[in-house]
Amino acid sequence: VWLHRAQRASRLPLHHQVCDQLRIAIAGLPPGAGLPSEGVLQAQAGVSRTTIRQALGVLVTEGLIVRERGRGTRVSLLRREQELTSLTGFAEDMLMAGLQPQAMVRGVTQVAADQRVSERLQIPLGSAVVRIERLRLACARPTLFDISFLPLEIGDIVAKGNLTDRPIFELLEQECGIRLRDANCRFFARLPSHRVAAELLMDPSSPVLAMERTTYSHTGQAVDFEDLFYRGDSMSYTVRVERTASNQTATSG
Amino acid sequence: VWLHRAQRASRLPLHHQVCDQLRIAIAGLPPGAGLPSEGVLQAQAGVSRTTIRQALGVLVTEGLIVRERGRGTRVSLLRREQELTSLTGFAEDMLMAGLQPQAMVRGVTQVAADQRVSERLQIPLGSAVVRIERLRLACARPTLFDISFLPLEIGDIVAKGNLTDRPIFELLEQECGIRLRDANCRFFARLPSHRVAAELLMDPSSPVLAMERTTYSHTGQAVDFEDLFYRGDSMSYTVRVERTASNQTATSG
Repeated sequence: VWLHRAQRASRLPLHHQVCDQLRIAIAGLPPGAGLPSEGVLQAQAGVSRTTIRQALGVLVTEGLIVRERGRGTRVSLLRREQELTSLTGFAEDMLMAGLQPQAMVRGVTQVAADQRVSERLQIPLGSAVVRIERLRLACARPTLFDISFLPLEIGDIVAKGNLTDRPIFELLEQECGIRLRDANCRFFARLPSHRVAAELLMDPSSPVLAMERTTYSHTGQAVDFEDLFYRGDSMSYTVRVERTASNQTATSG
Repeated sequence: VWLHRAQRASRLPLHHQVCDQLRIAIAGLPPGAGLPSEGVLQAQAGVSRTTIRQALGVLVTEGLIVRERGRGTRVSLLRREQELTSLTGFAEDMLMAGLQPQAMVRGVTQVAADQRVSERLQIPLGSAVVRIERLRLACARPTLFDISFLPLEIGDIVAKGNLTDRPIFELLEQECGIRLRDANCRFFARLPSHRVAAELLMDPSSPVLAMERTTYSHTGQAVDFEDLFYRGDSMSYTVRVERTASNQTATSG
């Protein structure tokens, strides 16, 4: 069963309810999997054809599904289209999208900062840092492999927290009393390590969308440097940018 | 020769001059290639060791080079770290970085909008659009393969322009009289088509950083939809995001 009956008494519009249910159902499916026909969905949800079409239209716009004449509706190759407008963590993003986030802690260790980590965290090369590896799931589907590096003092507090149930941003804010200000997110494409491919249940010859994220406190201290790896076939990030006056070329004939 | 003598009479600080020269030299090299020693660079540029170190430090921060104890300085795997703060085109980005941009037009055709193009350009499926394929070079190095789709009326004017010497944004602004407002940029990782891999002189089993960019006029009309493919080993995009009040979790004990 794809859909439960939509609840007319709910404050949520019917097509929102259908959307939310479809998002969860889709999260558990491989790219390319087919959706039931509009008629079947309509019957299951007990709503009009128009409502079903409205809900499917939203998911098409979000890039979660594709509709092709004669081939029906299928789960798209690119599943999540995440907007990058403010600094949010994985759990926050997934909850906002109606998807249940989970974290499986794969390792908490103390390591020496290499060149990259020391530059990003603005600490001397070789300083002790706390390294936390987590596999993140959305609706039970492996979605993100996340390696966080934290300065020792902060990392020690975070490592004592319940990393299965609480995001690192929450532990930084609530347990360390750090006000997070902003982050630099750097996107690139690469092939996954065998380890990352195995965790994300993906073909190691398929690319990952990688993000290096350095998060700063309101005093400008780098408090968290993360390597984030998303399956290339299931995640994209969208950023809106404006044309500024200084960019504009003179408009003449 | 890597560096010409820095000019003390110039208004540009010496380490800026060295930086600019090194950026151009590096753009022509494969990832992993070694740079001369500090002593050699110092002698060529006729500046102090401190100035050379300052310049190299900037390039390290920009991600263009890496320095490792005992292994010297090498061109990094990820060459360009492009900041995404406002809507700029490839030529503008490269000029700002001191790299000479070029465009080679690979094809200008009229095609029917498929599902994706029609959705992004907000036009009916099957509408005629102008498709422009260009290979973009930075300091003569293939860097970006760019496929642009433009609504017919706009595309006809752009296609008559000198696409080798003028960016599409400039033609839109100057020849079509369109004020560009903003764009949505969507990042994802994928394997290149054989065509794209051949154009970018890359191994087809290495990933590309792909961007789908939809550009809007000040009236909100979608005027340009582009598929941009960068070699995964030579391009990354950096975005700065702020933590907003609504994101912050309550700070308690």
